[in-house]
Amino acid sequence: MSKGITSKNEDYSQWYNEIVVKADLAEHSSVKGCMVIKPYGYSIWEKMQAILDQKFKETGHSNAYFPLFIPKSYFSKEAAHVEGFATECAVVTHYRLKNDGNGNIIVDETAKLEEELIVRPTSETIIWNTYRGWIQSYRDLPLLINQWANVVRWEMRTRLFLRTTEFLWQEGHTAHATSQEAIEETEKMLDVYADFAENFMAVPVVKGKKTPTERFAGALDTYCIEALMQDGKALQAGTSHFLGQNFAKAFDVKFTSKEGKLEHVWASSWGVSTRLIGALIMAHSDDSGLVLPPQLAPIQVVIVPIYKSDEELATISTFVDELMPKLKKLGISVKYDDRDSQRPGFKFAEYELKGVPVRLAIGGRDMENATVELARRDTKEKFTVAQNGLDTYIQNLLTEIQQSIYNKALNFRDEHITQANSYEEFKKLLDEKGGFIAAHWDGTAETEKQIKEETKATIRCIPLNNKQETGVCILTGKPSIQRVLFARAY
Amino acid sequence: MSKGITSKNEDYSQWYNEIVVKADLAEHSSVKGCMVIKPYGYSIWEKMQAILDQKFKETGHSNAYFPLFIPKSYFSKEAAHVEGFATECAVVTHYRLKNDGNGNIIVDETAKLEEELIVRPTSETIIWNTYRGWIQSYRDLPLLINQWANVVRWEMRTRLFLRTTEFLWQEGHTAHATSQEAIEETEKMLDVYADFAENFMAVPVVKGKKTPTERFAGALDTYCIEALMQDGKALQAGTSHFLGQNFAKAFDVKFTSKEGKLEHVWASSWGVSTRLIGALIMAHSDDSGLVLPPQLAPIQVVIVPIYKSDEELATISTFVDELMPKLKKLGISVKYDDRDSQRPGFKFAEYELKGVPVRLAIGGRDMENATVELARRDTKEKFTVAQNGLDTYIQNLLTEIQQSIYNKALNFRDEHITQANSYEEFKKLLDEKGGFIAAHWDGTAETEKQIKEETKATIRCIPLNNKQETGVCILTGKPSIQRVLFARAY
Repeated sequence: MSKGITSKNEDYSQWYNEIVVKADLAEHSSVKGCMVIKPYGYSIWEKMQAILDQKFKETGHSNAYFPLFIPKSYFSKEAAHVEGFATECAVVTHYRLKNDGNGNIIVDETAKLEEELIVRPTSETIIWNTYRGWIQSYRDLPLLINQWANVVRWEMRTRLFLRTTEFLWQEGHTAHATSQEAIEETEKMLDVYADFAENFMAVPVVKGKKTPTERFAGALDTYCIEALMQDGKALQAGTSHFLGQNFAKAFDVKFTSKEGKLEHVWASSWGVSTRLIGALIMAHSDDSGLVLPPQLAPIQVVIVPIYKSDEELATISTFVDELMPKLKKLGISVKYDDRDSQRPGFKFAEYELKGVPVRLAIGGRDMENATVELARRDTKEKFTVAQNGLDTYIQNLLTEIQQSIYNKALNFRDEHITQANSYEEFKKLLDEKGGFIAAHWDGTAETEKQIKEETKATIRCIPLNNKQETGVCILTGKPSIQRVLFARAY
Repeated sequence: MSKGITSKNEDYSQWYNEIVVKADLAEHSSVKGCMVIKPYGYSIWEKMQAILDQKFKETGHSNAYFPLFIPKSYFSKEAAHVEGFATECAVVTHYRLKNDGNGNIIVDETAKLEEELIVRPTSETIIWNTYRGWIQSYRDLPLLINQWANVVRWEMRTRLFLRTTEFLWQEGHTAHATSQEAIEETEKMLDVYADFAENFMAVPVVKGKKTPTERFAGALDTYCIEALMQDGKALQAGTSHFLGQNFAKAFDVKFTSKEGKLEHVWASSWGVSTRLIGALIMAHSDDSGLVLPPQLAPIQVVIVPIYKSDEELATISTFVDELMPKLKKLGISVKYDDRDSQRPGFKFAEYELKGVPVRLAIGGRDMENATVELARRDTKEKFTVAQNGLDTYIQNLLTEIQQSIYNKALNFRDEHITQANSYEEFKKLLDEKGGFIAAHWDGTAETEKQIKEETKATIRCIPLNNKQETGVCILTGKPSIQRVLFARAY
């Protein structure tokens, strides 16, 4: 099987699909819109989960688990919420199958649910219905809960990791005594996401707020982190919502304040999903395959022996057997691929495709010289490195690679934030350069909609601490107080 | 709110429910048969997951993720399998809701699925349909995959943790070149489960095989671990199935052997679920609440200060601030409860209810004497212990408590394996003593069924390496070659 892949300049979309499939990350399942996450892809998700989970716990959150199913009536209790999700809900209507007597298995129509159940597309409704029983007094607040779960949103057009009918995610749902505390929580978790994206995924992000049109259904404010992919399209990498008292009111969740007053609770919710793996791929990878930042690489170092005889292999293996525990002691994950069934060249291509950050090749000559040949996946540079002190050399190099991958993405992103001062210039930039376009907008949903329909660009966000400057809307010429970031997006 | 609970001798079932709810482990959700796992209960599940996941990885398995939904036609491909699960399937028939024009949200009948989707009750079918694409040659074998997931089996009568419509579990699905390898895998994973139950849950188990009647739907052989609860009822704590070539044949999964022959693949599957938390509760707890073995306790040590003045509290806190890092360094999880809003007695009762293995109470007199008052949750003994060397004292004590809880359960279990030599004796033992009853059985499904209908006792297993001895069936008087273990069970 050839592992060669399409060039990303030739066909970006095809390039992406081939990396996902050929690097053994995921594949389409036989269930429309649902993916199978393969072991290598899942191991990246496990690394993401472990890091995020630790950050959630460090910020005072506990994990819990709520039902997969939501009664239709609960789902409908918050008007904007149901409006936002109704068209993409998987609905359970029956709870039994039967044999029709001719050997066919059919749905048993006598086992019809009185009330249909929705497979959760997000869990605000079922969770807030539960919180009613958990919150009585200000002493029960804040309530800081996270859930790792699968969710389902029926999608007509799907892409592996980026948009699938079922996906894995985490969803935080918090309850607070005051509006200010809930907003602080919303912003704190946005910072957690931004820190994760930048320091672990090596993906620079813009933190901002969504326009009312792009808000989460049921939120008063949606904060987001927006990343830029190598084809110049933006990708929303995480969202954090200030829900006000909307869900507390819909589910009648009140608390007695310190002052003895009965008040509705204030809420936030926030989530990131397996979509992050799509972002990771698109942000860094190249025509040889995946490029993984060391912090998220399931294998950080691979060692390939180059030998002509069993004796030579034995000498190399003796060295490797001493090196591996030293690397592991430094927290570095390492694999020794001494398979006899494949040639070194095949192995090199395979680990490039899989994005392993550092490759060591060791031959007989290297053993004589007490060196190894080291290859960096991100820059494809090769070095001859002394065996003496190799463990700390690699440790430092992994740190450097992490930073270097981030810097490259940051430079690309910064080069692709461009100001447009007219609609013509805006459209030209979109078609010829891509990236984020900072432009004045009159603040109306109508203008936003028209620009989207005419250019496929959406307002990705209004950056936090955005510079206030007077100007005129690129579409309508009406007054504007600030530039907002537009882009075509995934 | 009173935390007092019903005595287990008075009403075992009520006692169990109250522990689950009052120790904040879980509660019934508003979705029939589905539970909410609360943070404290979920943290026990997280500990279980972490330990099991490590064991699975050490034995060569990787995690992956497969779709929640299974097309009805796939589900029906293995005849015994669909027969076993058809009557408890949640069925998705539609993928959209709509507003009916009167403000009501209804199912959009135009969005009806051509083929219904089953919410997975177990994933053999969807996974084996996927494995067809993953396995071509003997080089692709063995394929050793595990999945952490939620599954749904529609239950009419549910109990928190023990039997719920949705539950969390892991399911291993492996593929092998030979029957023998698949059987070895099946047995290996049974050993992993038994080791986990005994050394972490402190629950002794009997390893055995199920009778054909009790086998997993689609398996050639089902291995199980059976535990005994304090009310004398048995609980199946984990199963490991040898599936033969049933699923490989149903989904046409073949491989080319070393000899160049095209053959069907051999399979195993194995799983444990959140039911284990139910087993943990029922095996050890008492009338004061949960008793948790230290290996699975989210909080292993709680420290409660007893003070009359802020000054006294400050002195105690200084000591505790030095002690906590020492305990943490030894891998011990510790909580300092210096809440001013609750009295010591309230706190003592709360941590007893929650099963924290070791409680330290420290007062002014203790500080003067350089001692602490230590209470063991399992035996309720109290000791005065020197502050000097307290960290290693506690470390050793936790090991002792773990062993002691296990020994107590083991003694109880061993005292409750009784031989019955007649049906009268069998029924008397069931009603008066409970536990496992070792009795001769003629090996037929008819006898097994009749005994079950008349006594509610089932054959829990035929123990591995069971002693072979001739005898006569307690019901029919027909010849028997061995005793099997009967019990009433959860």
